[in-house]
Amino acid sequence: MQLVKLYIKLLFISAFSLMSLLAQAQSNSETIEVLSPNGQVKVSFLLEHGSIYYQVGFKNMPIINKSSLGFELLDKPQLAQNFKIVASEQTQVNQSWQAVWGENAQVENNYTQAIIRLAQQDQLSRQLNIHFRVFNDGVGFRYEFPQQPNLTSFAISKELTQFAMAENYTAWWIPAYRDQRYEYQYLKSALSSIDYAHTPLLMQNKKVAVAIHEAALVDYASMTLKLLTDNHKTLEADLVPWANGVKVYAQAPMSTPWRTIQVADSAVQLINSNLILNLNEENKLQDVSWIEPSKYMGIWWEMHIGQKSWSPGPMQGATTERAKQYIDFAAKHNIKGVLVEGWNKGWEGNWWERKPTFIFDQAVDGFDLAQVSQYAQEKGVELVGHHETAAGIAHYEAQMEQAFAYYQKHGIRSVKMGYVGTRVDGGEWHHGQFMVRHFNKLIKTAAKYQIMVNAHETIKDTGLRRTYPNMMTRECVRGMEYNGGSPDGGNLPNHTVIIPFTRGLSGPTDFTPGIFNFAYQEKRPNNRVPTTLAKQLALYVTIYSPQQMAADLPENYQDHPAFQFIYDVPTDWRKSIALAGDVGEYLVVARQDKHSEQWFLGATSNEDARNLSVQLDFLPKGQKFKAVIYADGANAHWQHNPAAYQITSQQVTAKSNLSLQLAAGGGAAVQFIPVN
Amino acid sequence: MQLVKLYIKLLFISAFSLMSLLAQAQSNSETIEVLSPNGQVKVSFLLEHGSIYYQVGFKNMPIINKSSLGFELLDKPQLAQNFKIVASEQTQVNQSWQAVWGENAQVENNYTQAIIRLAQQDQLSRQLNIHFRVFNDGVGFRYEFPQQPNLTSFAISKELTQFAMAENYTAWWIPAYRDQRYEYQYLKSALSSIDYAHTPLLMQNKKVAVAIHEAALVDYASMTLKLLTDNHKTLEADLVPWANGVKVYAQAPMSTPWRTIQVADSAVQLINSNLILNLNEENKLQDVSWIEPSKYMGIWWEMHIGQKSWSPGPMQGATTERAKQYIDFAAKHNIKGVLVEGWNKGWEGNWWERKPTFIFDQAVDGFDLAQVSQYAQEKGVELVGHHETAAGIAHYEAQMEQAFAYYQKHGIRSVKMGYVGTRVDGGEWHHGQFMVRHFNKLIKTAAKYQIMVNAHETIKDTGLRRTYPNMMTRECVRGMEYNGGSPDGGNLPNHTVIIPFTRGLSGPTDFTPGIFNFAYQEKRPNNRVPTTLAKQLALYVTIYSPQQMAADLPENYQDHPAFQFIYDVPTDWRKSIALAGDVGEYLVVARQDKHSEQWFLGATSNEDARNLSVQLDFLPKGQKFKAVIYADGANAHWQHNPAAYQITSQQVTAKSNLSLQLAAGGGAAVQFIPVN
Repeated sequence: MQLVKLYIKLLFISAFSLMSLLAQAQSNSETIEVLSPNGQVKVSFLLEHGSIYYQVGFKNMPIINKSSLGFELLDKPQLAQNFKIVASEQTQVNQSWQAVWGENAQVENNYTQAIIRLAQQDQLSRQLNIHFRVFNDGVGFRYEFPQQPNLTSFAISKELTQFAMAENYTAWWIPAYRDQRYEYQYLKSALSSIDYAHTPLLMQNKKVAVAIHEAALVDYASMTLKLLTDNHKTLEADLVPWANGVKVYAQAPMSTPWRTIQVADSAVQLINSNLILNLNEENKLQDVSWIEPSKYMGIWWEMHIGQKSWSPGPMQGATTERAKQYIDFAAKHNIKGVLVEGWNKGWEGNWWERKPTFIFDQAVDGFDLAQVSQYAQEKGVELVGHHETAAGIAHYEAQMEQAFAYYQKHGIRSVKMGYVGTRVDGGEWHHGQFMVRHFNKLIKTAAKYQIMVNAHETIKDTGLRRTYPNMMTRECVRGMEYNGGSPDGGNLPNHTVIIPFTRGLSGPTDFTPGIFNFAYQEKRPNNRVPTTLAKQLALYVTIYSPQQMAADLPENYQDHPAFQFIYDVPTDWRKSIALAGDVGEYLVVARQDKHSEQWFLGATSNEDARNLSVQLDFLPKGQKFKAVIYADGANAHWQHNPAAYQITSQQVTAKSNLSLQLAAGGGAAVQFIPVN
Repeated sequence: MQLVKLYIKLLFISAFSLMSLLAQAQSNSETIEVLSPNGQVKVSFLLEHGSIYYQVGFKNMPIINKSSLGFELLDKPQLAQNFKIVASEQTQVNQSWQAVWGENAQVENNYTQAIIRLAQQDQLSRQLNIHFRVFNDGVGFRYEFPQQPNLTSFAISKELTQFAMAENYTAWWIPAYRDQRYEYQYLKSALSSIDYAHTPLLMQNKKVAVAIHEAALVDYASMTLKLLTDNHKTLEADLVPWANGVKVYAQAPMSTPWRTIQVADSAVQLINSNLILNLNEENKLQDVSWIEPSKYMGIWWEMHIGQKSWSPGPMQGATTERAKQYIDFAAKHNIKGVLVEGWNKGWEGNWWERKPTFIFDQAVDGFDLAQVSQYAQEKGVELVGHHETAAGIAHYEAQMEQAFAYYQKHGIRSVKMGYVGTRVDGGEWHHGQFMVRHFNKLIKTAAKYQIMVNAHETIKDTGLRRTYPNMMTRECVRGMEYNGGSPDGGNLPNHTVIIPFTRGLSGPTDFTPGIFNFAYQEKRPNNRVPTTLAKQLALYVTIYSPQQMAADLPENYQDHPAFQFIYDVPTDWRKSIALAGDVGEYLVVARQDKHSEQWFLGATSNEDARNLSVQLDFLPKGQKFKAVIYADGANAHWQHNPAAYQITSQQVTAKSNLSLQLAAGGGAAVQFIPVN
């Protein structure tokens, strides 16, 4: 991550004189307006009778009405009223930076920054600064607690940040404070029907789309949103508490995560926003040569569909022999990684119901890690490590360094983490400050041993991959596994055309696409992967992840013509564009390979069939391309005929319109290869 | 309500001999199948190792998989296992009955009844009978606790009824255990994302629509549905508890309400089901001459839009003079009733925040009830009474008889009830046994004084209007009032094309349509009625209620050509048919006037404009009709141009197709007048 351009224009710094302070106190009210570079997003900070507020507008439309700011502290006076503005400054930042990997090789980062320095007008004179960054596609703001004599160590009992939404929007949300963490299918409702929602929370009407989330969650509780019932449309930051009820333990100087409000004309445009990444700090890792996006496959799906088990014994999935079969296939088919779940000791019986017994540097009988890893390296493939903690953090952290050192010794560069459980260490939520701390410790420790992290059942993404680019991808979604193993039969067909607009706004999603065998009569008669085959391919483009799994068994890919798309599709991109879509209905995304001139396109539909006409004006002008189209077969249908597909090709240019017929629950995947 | 046909064919009664009992105990498993009259709905009752279950199929498709039955009792052994079947019988019932009023003058009631008599195989030998009624459009079942020596008085701590849904359907639901009672906009999500839902709960996929609700809730807790998280698709009956945690206090002999499962090919067909009514007992009122559906208007909307107040003083809405204005308008415009909210003593200040101070037989200063009622009667209009209890039941019940006697004395035949508050009498839910008891007492007391009831903020409808036809209509929905007075700005445009498919399945809905003035710049700048004018008219047909309000101010109706439809539309019907629709999208309903040969049709859309072609084959063949069409104007739009409408007429027959252009948030209302 390298800075290529950085223009900072300091607009004005004002240190108020005694006279202006007096004038201020008399007027009782003060407003500071901050405009985005092109002026379409406007934030107003308001000081009224010593209390602090903000509001947000977009294209002269109110988006967030006057909303509270501040804190309640444990056993200390509130940090919410009696404020004066000590100073404020505005800065124009016009930057672009290069990503180690990502949806886009180069990211524009243009915003207006305002820093408002506040102090309470009493004998403690406690200080609180508010930073706003106003982009053309939204707003970030954070609280800074500067070093000061009368506020050193403290505990936050409530963050008073509110989001007084201007309209009763239609919301797409998952509920907070439930046992399955983020693993819910999305609810669509009026904003007024929410109780507690996770972020990113998407809201929209016919005129505008808004998403609330946070960026740079480093040492704080994660923010959920609570609907206030007195007016049915104001959301309040509801920090996930420690088991003892405290929200955050802090020590000045410190800053909160950024509260983010992304806004655009329509939901599909939000997918193109880089606001969350831009609000994170730059890469802190000196050497990133070992960090590399890639595809992987692994011993995993056969457990979910009941053919194998994570436990040792006759059903054991993790065996040396089976791993070698995966490695052989991967080596021939452009798949870099092979994951082996259940490889280590401690998986006996109902492991998720007891205190964890995992040993992270000892292989289970029947699996020889050293041999398998060696075999993989000889074939040009890499073993992907796996640490299931069963949400036992103390147990895991005691072994963490040793476990990563063990992986490094065996040439393993990547680990999939698991935190299965309803609470962590018996009492903490998965999303409170306790787990945020653990997770950031995990990322740093992994980096020390040059290991990339793919985290499941963990804290939501807030863009830390910019700062620690070994933080590759994560779950935090109701993923493919539910289709294979959940007693409810799996996700609905519209799930995969909701999550890129919602969960996807936070960052890469390890959804694990690529299932070619859709039903499992023997062991899972009621389960089904609710897509056609062509849609499975399209997911490699529509759901972004730098580590993409080819999730099915090698036997189901062997000699399958459609596997060619998985072979060809890259995992690192020069440019990404969400072209068209409607939440819960369909999505079309185009991406350019980072390392070639090829483009790829994915189009996915919900349970309805539909015809799409896609303008190819994203392609470079004047260049001819061979478009290889993996489309639904004529009678394809996710339920009755999921495997029907066809591969065709045609020559196209930037002037072409591509006509795509998507089946019910279907999709299309296209590879564009430059030709002379 | 008069029985016109009743055929009962007793199919078989089996009283098991000692030998068959022994055989049964040895086999450990027994199944009793019950088929609907046409065979398309099948219920299986299962006894397995002494435990009891049921399952439901529709057209050979599983709808509800094997699901538990039974009870946990307070301080007593469970009534769930160790059962044997003592006897079972099946009866075919082929009946039709005439409604005092309703959507249909005559109701077909054809079902197969099975009664399964169970006894526990221990020294207590407690008995429990299960009654199934299997209709072509669904199933009702209830538990009967017969009189018996070892189960007399008891308390139910948990009802074990489950609904193991066969698929992870798309659900349309409102959350239970929230402070706004049933007044939420509907959530659309996968079944797997529910936590606690109220009934009716609508579930659907492309093949089938299913609704779970209950019928004949008389002295029991109301049933909410809890999603079991171990499999994400089994719902469990979750009875709303008393403040002390007990669910139901009971005394044998008694029967529970019917648990109902309505099923059809599509959601719109569920609207045509009479299953809930059929499961209620016949009319118990001897004299029904005083019961009459009608339209009403009243002093109410001006409070919601902030122009007047419920409190006495300068803003007081309830004045003799204003009431006379309403009466004058009503008398000229075919509106039978005039409601006056805030007419009685006790409305001072924030009445909803204190212990109630209402006096139900004393008018506030400025309002002379005797004079107004007399004036109304002279004009051929009736005053509609109003009892706001502020959820203070003890306070209200102490005055109830006296209050109804007072109304009867003044010629008042109808009362609107209010139960505003988050809990009843300080601790009870609005929907537990406490309130069910109160509500049934209310209906009976009202009947004694020949008063019809329109109840707001009360228990959901379970079809008791069949038994007590003075139970006219009720709210139990997020009604029109939210559009005028809610700080969230109001309901979304799709709300009115969701509630007939959900809330509407339970019974009449006092939504209060007919607003002609859509925005209130001065007092409620952010509020709006989210429909066009033509859609307001259509709601009189699409949302069924025997008491329909003309909810706007008389000034907004005066000399308005479109008011003619409200003038003409009846409130009692010979026949009703939901013709077409899609939940949250649109709905088309036709109804025939009970007292003439006229038909009426309403068509409503969500936020999208759409063209509909309606086949008029519901009209009697060979008869010509003049169709008077109240349609959206060419540029009508709920937000930008709600008042644009046009009235046209054309001649049609049963062979015609009527083409309707609905605007965004629009609708169409049609009156069909027979012509020669």
